[in-house]
Amino acid sequence: MPDEEGHPSRDEIELGRVLAALADPLRRSVIRELAAEPDGTARTCSSFGLPVSKATLTHHFRALREAGLIRQVDRGNSRMATLRRDDVETLFPGLLAILRAEQP
Amino acid sequence: MPDEEGHPSRDEIELGRVLAALADPLRRSVIRELAAEPDGTARTCSSFGLPVSKATLTHHFRALREAGLIRQVDRGNSRMATLRRDDVETLFPGLLAILRAEQP
Repeated sequence: MPDEEGHPSRDEIELGRVLAALADPLRRSVIRELAAEPDGTARTCSSFGLPVSKATLTHHFRALREAGLIRQVDRGNSRMATLRRDDVETLFPGLLAILRAEQP
Repeated sequence: MPDEEGHPSRDEIELGRVLAALADPLRRSVIRELAAEPDGTARTCSSFGLPVSKATLTHHFRALREAGLIRQVDRGNSRMATLRRDDVETLFPGLLAILRAEQP
C-alpha cells in the first residue's frame, strides 16, 4: 500500500502508471532534469521553472510521485523532490536513458 | 510528414506520443505480443483477442500506428499489423524489453 504521502513501494510501481505520467512533456522534463543530476539531488518543485500555475505544478508532481518516479519530502518550509533512480532503473532498465536522450 | 495511412517516418516518431500510446494496457499487450514474435510477424487486429468492439479496436490500432509503433498494411481482405521493431529499438533502446518484462 502506498504510504500516506502517496509513494508506492517498489513492488507497487506499475508500468502503465509510469508511462501515463511520462506521456506529459512537462513531467518528462522534470524527470529528464533530475536524471541528469547526481543521484540523490533534491529540488523544489518551483526550481524547474515550469510555466504553469502552482495548482498545476502540484498536480504534475503528484502524478510523478504516485507513479513511483519521484519521492517528495518536506524539509523545513520546502517540499523537495528526488528521483527514485534505483527503483526506476531496477524495474525499467534503460527508461531513464530514453528520457534523457529526448531533445527538450 | 506521415504517409496517407498515418505512419510517421522514423524521424517523426515522438517519445511523448509513444508513451501515451503505451499507457493503455490493451495497446501494451499488442506490442508485448508482437515483440515476442519473430521480426516481421504480421497479424490481424482480431488475432489479439482483445475484449473490445471493432470500433475500439480500430481506435487502439490507429493510436499505435500514428505513434510509429506498428505498421499496418492491407493484404487481400485483411489489414495486417507488424511491429516497427528496428525503428523503436533504434530510437528508444530497451523500451521493448521493458514492455516484454511486464506481467500481463
